[in-house]
Amino acid sequence: MFESAELGHKISKEVYSHEEPLLREQLLECQYELLAAKRFPVLVIISGADGAGKGETVNLLNEWMDPRLIMTEAFDAPSQEERQRPRFYRFWNTLPPKGHIGILFGSWYTSPIEERVSGDTKTVELDAAIEEIVRFEKMLTDEGALVLKFWFHLSKNRQKARLKALEANPKTRWRISDTEWEQFKHYDKFRRISEHTLRKTSTGNAPWIVVEGTDANFRSLTVGQTLLKTLRARLGSPDLPSATANLPPIFAPVDNLHLLQTLDMSQVMAKKEYNAELEKWQGRLNSLSRHPEFKKLSVVFLFEGNDAAGKGSTIRRVTQALDARRYQVIQVTAPTDEELAQPYLWRFWRHLPKRGSITIFDRSWYGRVLVERVEKFCAETDWMRAYAEINDFEEQLINHRIVVVKFWLAITKEEQLARFKQREETPHKQFKITADDWRNREKWDQYEHAVCDMIDRTSTEYAPWHVIPSNDKRSARIQVLRSCCESIEEALNE
Amino acid sequence: MFESAELGHKISKEVYSHEEPLLREQLLECQYELLAAKRFPVLVIISGADGAGKGETVNLLNEWMDPRLIMTEAFDAPSQEERQRPRFYRFWNTLPPKGHIGILFGSWYTSPIEERVSGDTKTVELDAAIEEIVRFEKMLTDEGALVLKFWFHLSKNRQKARLKALEANPKTRWRISDTEWEQFKHYDKFRRISEHTLRKTSTGNAPWIVVEGTDANFRSLTVGQTLLKTLRARLGSPDLPSATANLPPIFAPVDNLHLLQTLDMSQVMAKKEYNAELEKWQGRLNSLSRHPEFKKLSVVFLFEGNDAAGKGSTIRRVTQALDARRYQVIQVTAPTDEELAQPYLWRFWRHLPKRGSITIFDRSWYGRVLVERVEKFCAETDWMRAYAEINDFEEQLINHRIVVVKFWLAITKEEQLARFKQREETPHKQFKITADDWRNREKWDQYEHAVCDMIDRTSTEYAPWHVIPSNDKRSARIQVLRSCCESIEEALNE
Repeated sequence: MFESAELGHKISKEVYSHEEPLLREQLLECQYELLAAKRFPVLVIISGADGAGKGETVNLLNEWMDPRLIMTEAFDAPSQEERQRPRFYRFWNTLPPKGHIGILFGSWYTSPIEERVSGDTKTVELDAAIEEIVRFEKMLTDEGALVLKFWFHLSKNRQKARLKALEANPKTRWRISDTEWEQFKHYDKFRRISEHTLRKTSTGNAPWIVVEGTDANFRSLTVGQTLLKTLRARLGSPDLPSATANLPPIFAPVDNLHLLQTLDMSQVMAKKEYNAELEKWQGRLNSLSRHPEFKKLSVVFLFEGNDAAGKGSTIRRVTQALDARRYQVIQVTAPTDEELAQPYLWRFWRHLPKRGSITIFDRSWYGRVLVERVEKFCAETDWMRAYAEINDFEEQLINHRIVVVKFWLAITKEEQLARFKQREETPHKQFKITADDWRNREKWDQYEHAVCDMIDRTSTEYAPWHVIPSNDKRSARIQVLRSCCESIEEALNE
Repeated sequence: MFESAELGHKISKEVYSHEEPLLREQLLECQYELLAAKRFPVLVIISGADGAGKGETVNLLNEWMDPRLIMTEAFDAPSQEERQRPRFYRFWNTLPPKGHIGILFGSWYTSPIEERVSGDTKTVELDAAIEEIVRFEKMLTDEGALVLKFWFHLSKNRQKARLKALEANPKTRWRISDTEWEQFKHYDKFRRISEHTLRKTSTGNAPWIVVEGTDANFRSLTVGQTLLKTLRARLGSPDLPSATANLPPIFAPVDNLHLLQTLDMSQVMAKKEYNAELEKWQGRLNSLSRHPEFKKLSVVFLFEGNDAAGKGSTIRRVTQALDARRYQVIQVTAPTDEELAQPYLWRFWRHLPKRGSITIFDRSWYGRVLVERVEKFCAETDWMRAYAEINDFEEQLINHRIVVVKFWLAITKEEQLARFKQREETPHKQFKITADDWRNREKWDQYEHAVCDMIDRTSTEYAPWHVIPSNDKRSARIQVLRSCCESIEEALNE
């Protein structure tokens, strides 16, 4: 969930000074257009970690736009009046009318998360609050509201560095008391509970937008651009028969830094080391699959990756370690007519492993948010809701003691070109390269964007993505084998 | 939830013999059209009480239509294969493809309800299962599936009579063992848990259709006609940009018997008795409102009813009993511009009573499913989802210790005419009768239909409808006052 918000996004002062006035002008224009049209209200929710710039962003948005048309609300402890009413009373009272923007600093997410972190509530109470929120937001979007939920994130290191910096500076020292360090102790718990809450409330119509909070220029432009693009798209599209069909927010990253760029692609493994490692991890995987407790588990290994990233050969290194009676490889190609006549997850349910078995998916249900998205085989509303559907699906697997290990095999654009050419030149590899591959390559950037969104929205605590730099095939294979082993070991130890 | 399914619906043999062949022919036609179009799958879920005709209906549907195009599944204990997969594996495996009809006898509802009734699970586990079901069905309807959920209901008396009749007949005695009578002991619990489950899973896109199960002719024609009308409507409408905007099922009652007809409208109360009763109940209401524990409660009295049914004068009899500082009467008329710019529930949240106070709504949020539905001020998908939204809303009130007492004041069409005429003839009452009233009267049947749907879909255990026969104003007022008192007493005793 937070992968892309820990990369160290940064926007330089020069770029910011150039972009900011343009953005500001366009936002203001949009705001007046929104007011004139009076077709729908806009709700901007600003939540997230302390010190990640929530307050600053709220102030900035008010500065950029016409504050008379913005209803800004911060939610402290409920007043006497509010305590006498149901929990949502205060939120209902602050909803912006059609044509207006409401900015909620805090909102209905604050107490459920805080109370769970402090231990005042249990998970079932958090889940009940979450269910209430989902129903409430569904009502809002069904009624036509545009709901933009921003989560400002700081990695653990950045949070620590921030507290230390504030403490070191005599001018800001007063801002750091024991309370702040006490809260920092709960960082991991806060992160875990936030992830759970974000995942369960990230719906097709009101998905979370996670923003790295460290650099003020980055986070301000990101929020501003996302708001601008989403507003424009919505103002430019007609009201549909049912408001539920309205377009989801458009996340507008304002720098070109993304997850896949931050991978260390320079890893190389020498042949000798590789052979030794291969023997070690294949042996380990084999004995794990014969572990007496393995019968009580099922396993799914799932492979996605760039074309020519080496999915097939990596899968072979995995299956070499396994008894053929224990596994099944499912190659996922274009859906058949039978499969097209069913919900897209249907074809995968059929292949779920029984106890003591492993299913290896060579491509998978993630096609929905990769190829189907990029090639426009399904509508935006459909792939947007797929993230939540996929998370639900995988949660069902995990709850049934199915270990789910997801790999993205990443190669660089240059490496792909070299491999494509090599395939064309090698007679027994020519069958592996088709016109489709070249066509996909032309959409490299779109695919990268889709991959990053996929990882951000579906990398969960219970089923994280393993992103494997695969320019070097040997080290990639070893990393995959090791992750397979470690995931099973973890499950056996539970 | 079960109000309309306890009226003793019946279809005569003659009517049935006439209707059945026509229905059959049309269903078969529709089925082939569905197959040819291959646009969406149809899922028919048959659930409900034992002995209410579930099995018979499944067989009949297969007899009426082409069984080769129907996938019928009954769900017994899961097989060895199925137990090794997550709970929904078996359901995924039986989903019908586009163009086909799947009939699920039992389905994903059976175990969660049964396990809760038997006490094997707790409410939080039932609620977790319900949440899973809601997400699964949302995915199905989002993917375009038409989901029809039939609940076959038997009242407690009918269930008892049925068991006795089977026992008395030597030919059927074998069907009744101790198990059946043992289950009957849990009737109330089963009903309560079923109501809870139905309420939480009755969504705008996949609402429950509750059918009285006693008379085979009635229930067969009802299911058949509902399926036919819904199929036709869906086949005749274009695929919308998002499947979530698809039309909900169309419930087709096949007799003219409805809730409002079964009221005893002949009640009359003499003036002397009325005066004594009025004093008694007004006094009681007054002392309840001054009860020391009353400060910990809030109260909502809500009045809906036919035009000229006497809402105003009845409300006055209630307020006469109260200290003016303790209550507020909210007269709900056409929404203002300010209110139209918000979700429809917004205007009501603002008036929720604080502790120790009473808000009396003269008309209410039910306008959404009455006047807005009948006058087409909102789309069908919008009022269909409103039932669930209203139930959610009222549940929030009850959880906050707000007592909610809902009245429908019912008069006959003849009585309304007499009152309208009297108003026109009495100078000081002329302001009470407008062209609108006469226009509404022309839509009497549509309003009656909407009222019955409203009661069926929003009369809940925690906030039931009190339907008050009001041709006789005196007895109506006394019934209202008594219900007000009893509801508060019940809350004080909690």
